[in-house]
Parts: sequence; structure tokens; C-alpha cells
Amino acid sequence: MTLAATDALTQDDFLGGRLKIWQPKRGYRAGVDPVLLAASVQARPDQTVLELGCGVGVASLCLAARLPGLRLTGVELQADYAALARRNAEHAQAAFQVVTADLRRLPPDIRQNRYDHVIMNPPYFDRMAGTGSTDPGRDIALGGATALADWLDVGARRVGPRGYLTIIQRMERLPEVLSGLDGRLGSIVLCPIAGRPGRAPELFLLRARQEGKAAFRMCSPLVMHAGQTHQGDQESYTEKVRAVLRDGDELGIWP
Amino acid sequence: MTLAATDALTQDDFLGGRLKIWQPKRGYRAGVDPVLLAASVQARPDQTVLELGCGVGVASLCLAARLPGLRLTGVELQADYAALARRNAEHAQAAFQVVTADLRRLPPDIRQNRYDHVIMNPPYFDRMAGTGSTDPGRDIALGGATALADWLDVGARRVGPRGYLTIIQRMERLPEVLSGLDGRLGSIVLCPIAGRPGRAPELFLLRARQEGKAAFRMCSPLVMHAGQTHQGDQESYTEKVRAVLRDGDELGIWP
Repeated sequence: MTLAATDALTQDDFLGGRLKIWQPKRGYRAGVDPVLLAASVQARPDQTVLELGCGVGVASLCLAARLPGLRLTGVELQADYAALARRNAEHAQAAFQVVTADLRRLPPDIRQNRYDHVIMNPPYFDRMAGTGSTDPGRDIALGGATALADWLDVGARRVGPRGYLTIIQRMERLPEVLSGLDGRLGSIVLCPIAGRPGRAPELFLLRARQEGKAAFRMCSPLVMHAGQTHQGDQESYTEKVRAVLRDGDELGIWP
Repeated sequence: MTLAATDALTQDDFLGGRLKIWQPKRGYRAGVDPVLLAASVQARPDQTVLELGCGVGVASLCLAARLPGLRLTGVELQADYAALARRNAEHAQAAFQVVTADLRRLPPDIRQNRYDHVIMNPPYFDRMAGTGSTDPGRDIALGGATALADWLDVGARRVGPRGYLTIIQRMERLPEVLSGLDGRLGSIVLCPIAGRPGRAPELFLLRARQEGKAAFRMCSPLVMHAGQTHQGDQESYTEKVRAVLRDGDELGIWP
């Protein structure tokens, strides 16, 4: 895949059109998950944020749209995606610096820094366990060449004093995420995400704090869609989720 | 505390009066938690069940009431509680054998056996972290002299091929429970338990399987009470919970 040619790309609206994102037509395409990740972060406007695996920059640029004073840094392994993230940042006029790097070999200026917030939306499937697609870029973004434990290890190291690490991930990997954070960060809060009321949550947001001493807590699940079935062409998001996706509101889930 | 004198005891109704339980007036008193634990177990009538820390026997005797063919064994550290469990089993005419033992030093006939189901409702608080009460029996039952990791270790060893371990516990100890089961049992399913709709779940039921290969899953939370506030003297249990507590139904939460 080459992303140099604009005809291999689409420009998509996020946050009700407030954010325009160039992304590949084929390959990994950002959905609502990075938007929810960004919306969950409770930051003061002058803080610093590190996003591991930023892709084309949706999560960081959603955060920048809500809190323009933030200083954001993104790390992305794939040069094509990193280039798009820079292009998207420029279009958004956001203070978002993107570094092309393997998160296991961060450049010194990031490795010597600690951030108020570290955010991540790591690949949802274990690449070793699945079958590859014909698109290597999509493969890496969906399937991950880096173990989840490495993401958490690197993330935990880069969170500054009293800072937060926030992750969105598939529910089936909750035990892996908790064990990766064990003894590293505390005050862990889990927010399950369910497609509809009463359905099994298939995703979660989780926040942990550097030096946090509070016991583990679970929130009531965040429900994405109202009602039990999809109603034709009607948008069915719950009020809270619609306010995030369309108006760029903060999610406000943490206790 | 001595439990020999009947005036130190109450006889309480469980399962709408189908089960009568002698328990100490003071000290640890069984509530709905062991009833939910028992109701969650999906057993065939001819199977074997081991309950670790059975107290006065509520969970095992609820199970026996629903599935009279089960062969149940309970282990209880405190002789007074074990004696009451035997008395309650006799009154219920249940196939429930109670052994007074420390679960870390099980008698040979249990240690050489494996069971179709192992169930447990371990103490909810870490005894080392809290302050003691004036009742040592209540202290041990609530606060636990045995580490949660030991409960899980002993439980996992006693589960037979394709058998299930089921535990009810406070939400704040979920990370500890998952790490205690890690690499031991699989096909873990978590069912959070919330007091009311939309409230943060403060308890959970969790089931894991010997040789289970399925990914971790979470159910939609089980909600105990309908509505947002308590309505005077009205019983406010949700329909599903009322059917368990009053009619002795199976909970039916596992996928």
C-alpha cells in the first residue's frame, strides 16, 4: 500500500465535522473507538499527552479539539499512517507532534520524558493467533506486531507522577491488561462498553493512575445504542454517546 | 463465642422458607450472596460439588434444594460453623458432608478427589488490611485468615476435567481473582452484580473451567433491585433475583 496518492485516501468527518481526518480507503480505518478513548480523558488544558500507536491521529486530534491547550505527542510505527497523522494535525492546526517509531525503541526525547496522560488503542487481536489479510498496514494496525504487555509496560513507564494511563481494548483481553498493569499503576477503574442495553460488553475503557492507591472499581457499562435492534436508517446512539461523537463532549465516566 | 447454646442462634428462612438455616445471632450471618452463588451453578443432578469455606452451609444447601441428587462436600475452618452446617444439612435431609479443616491442609480423601464443581464465597476483606472486630468468628468469616490466592489455588486443583470453579467476591478483588486463576483455568466468564440499574457493580460472580480454552467474557451486570431508590417496606428485587431468592430458581447467567 502506498498512501502518497490522494485517490487511495478518504477524508472523513469526526465530531460532527469539527475534525477532518485523511485515512486510507483500504486498510485500518478509525471508527468510534479512538473517539471514545479521547472523550474519556479528563485533562487540564495545559497538560501533556502521549499517544502510543496513534495511527492517523484520531484520538489525539479529538482531544486537541476539546482541549486546544494540550501538548500532544503521538508515536506510530507505520510511516504512512504517521505521515497522515501529521497532515491531519496540520489541517486541524493542533499542537500534535507525531514521531515514527517502534514503541519498544522510543527516541530519547520521549524516553526521557513523562506525560500527564498516556493513551492507547492497541490492536484488538493477537497477530500470532490469527490469519493475515492481504493488507500489511491493516494487519499491523488490527493485529499488532507488538505484545499487549509491551504496550502497557512502555505506557506505565511514561506516565508522570499522579498521571493517568487510559486504554480502550476488547473485553477478552481484560485479564491480560490487568496483569500487565499489576504492581505498576493503581486506582484502576474499568468501564465496560456494551452495544445495547443488557448486552454483554465487548469492549472496555480502563484508566489507571501512577502512584494510585485506590482499590479496583468497575463503572456501570457505557451503552452505545438505545433499544434492542437497529431501526432502519435512524441513528440509534444513546444521548451520552451522541454528545461525544457529534458534539465532541467529554464522556464523564470516571468516578 | 460459643454456639452450643440455642439462644445464641437464630433459625432463618432461605428460598422462601424451603430451607431453614441455624446461624449465630452475632458474628458472620449469611445474606443473599451464598444464595446467588448456588443459583449460578449449572449442574447435572448426579454431579459432585466441593464448597470451600462453607460456613453454616447456605450455598451448598441451596444447591441441594434445587438439585437433590448432587453429592456435596463442604470444608469449614471454624468448628462452630461446621457443626451448624451439619445440623442444617441434617434438617434439610441433604447429601452434604461437612469437614472441619483448613483449606490449605485438606484431609487426604478430599485432596485425592476432584469435583465437577468447586464453589466459594471467600471473605470479602483482606484481614491484614483492616481492623479486627470483637468477634473472632465474624472476623475470620469476613476478613479471612487465608489469602485469596490460596483459595483459588486449592480450588483450581480440586476441579475435575471440564469441571467448573465458581466464586462470588467483591469487585475490588477482581484483579486478584483473575491473576490467581491465570494459566490454571480458562473460559472465564465474569458476571458483575449491581445493586440497582446503572449503578457501579460492587460484587461479581465468576466462573472458570478446567481445560477451558474460550476467551474471557463479561456478561451484562445482574441487577439486584429495580428502580433507583428503596420504596418504603416494598420488596424491590428484580424479577430474576426474586425468582432465585424466593422460589429457588437457577440464575441462568452464563452464556
